[in-house]
Amino acid sequence: MNQERVQSCIDACLACARECDSCATACLNEEDITMLARCIELDRECAEACYATARLMGMGGEHYALFCHACAEICEACAEECEKHVEHGMDHCKACAEACRKCADECRAMVGVNA
Amino acid sequence: MNQERVQSCIDACLACARECDSCATACLNEEDITMLARCIELDRECAEACYATARLMGMGGEHYALFCHACAEICEACAEECEKHVEHGMDHCKACAEACRKCADECRAMVGVNA
Amino acid sequence: MNQERVQSCIDACLACARECDSCATACLNEEDITMLARCIELDRECAEACYATARLMGMGGEHYALFCHACAEICEACAEECEKHVEHGMDHCKACAEACRKCADECRAMVGVNA
Amino acid sequence: MNQERVQSCIDACLACARECDSCATACLNEEDITMLARCIELDRECAEACYATARLMGMGGEHYALFCHACAEICEACAEECEKHVEHGMDHCKACAEACRKCADECRAMVGVNA
Repeated sequence: MNQERVQSCIDACLACARECDSCATACLNEEDITMLARCIELDRECAEACYATARLMGMGGEHYALFCHACAEICEACAEECEKHVEHGMDHCKACAEACRKCADECRAMVGVNA
Repeated sequence: MNQERVQSCIDACLACARECDSCATACLNEEDITMLARCIELDRECAEACYATARLMGMGGEHYALFCHACAEICEACAEECEKHVEHGMDHCKACAEACRKCADECRAMVGVNA
Repeated sequence: MNQERVQSCIDACLACARECDSCATACLNEEDITMLARCIELDRECAEACYATARLMGMGGEHYALFCHACAEICEACAEECEKHVEHGMDHCKACAEACRKCADECRAMVGVNA
Repeated sequence: MNQERVQSCIDACLACARECDSCATACLNEEDITMLARCIELDRECAEACYATARLMGMGGEHYALFCHACAEICEACAEECEKHVEHGMDHCKACAEACRKCADECRAMVGVNA
């Protein structure tokens, strides 16, 4: 696994984690929070997963592949949920969904699932 | 998955994470750190993995099983390394290895691998 | 600072972090989430603060006092918010408020503010 | 506090956290680890502090200033230690020290200490 690819995946994880935390906060300031409850839940999980996966990659060990795999799954679930709210004008959900899709792709590339 | 079992796994993850952070610090205060370099590396990874896995379980979502699986792998690697240093009187490695083995067992039980 | 007191504060931080994550999840499953939006926000901040503070103490370094001070402030804000919802039957808020108060006390004791 | 400044501080915290984790790993692969033991300890603390502080800022709450203050202190301690090893050709310590100094400056600006 070349180092450039790892750094690119860390970038994607950290960008995704930040969007997830921002999206959760933005959701909590929307008028209809009930509609966004599952989005907030997945944002929280996804942010945690992305920060931890980024950090494990950054430590340079040999055990991050399974975390990348697990992280990709959460990112996809979060993207799917966020995408439902784009048509209701939730720009934070749009930005979050895009970051999640990118992160899922990069994480899958780390485990060879996309190869 | 019953809630009691989840709480027990969270307990094991947090206990393991604490032992890993303590073990790394103790290793850095030993005389022959070079011998313990890989132990410190795995302690760092394992602590991060355990804290994140505990937190994902604690959030009550549906996506922790893959993280438990990934966490168990790191715990086993860390236990294996720590066990090498027990005969050299490293009590922190002994305590850490035991916490890692317990955490690996609990995490595997979460994904049904040990069932 | 004796080691027993540090361990007790780590215990309180981790217990508080777990209650905060649980409370946030429980809030997101209540009927009137809007009323609980600020509670969820503070739960998220408080969980993050408590996990980090616990970990810094567990690493045995010399720089945790300022984190304990910062953590106590968030714990108190979270407790204050949670307490508002106890009369509406929010048991998770009650449990969370208690854990936050205890954690704030232990953290303040670490910095001598309560001494 | 304008949002641009917050984002810039989050950037600095995450960049610093990554350098700290990388520096710790690189230190563990050097020949004379004993000389670097304190550097590794501070790298670990600083990475944890920076990730948590970045995340608290990213959540958009009101309680990050004390964390920025606490984080700046650890960053400065880590920078000071790393700088000792630059003359021994430790490029990872040089990169880490620079990221720590920048992060400390940005964090202090958040609390008005540098104002």
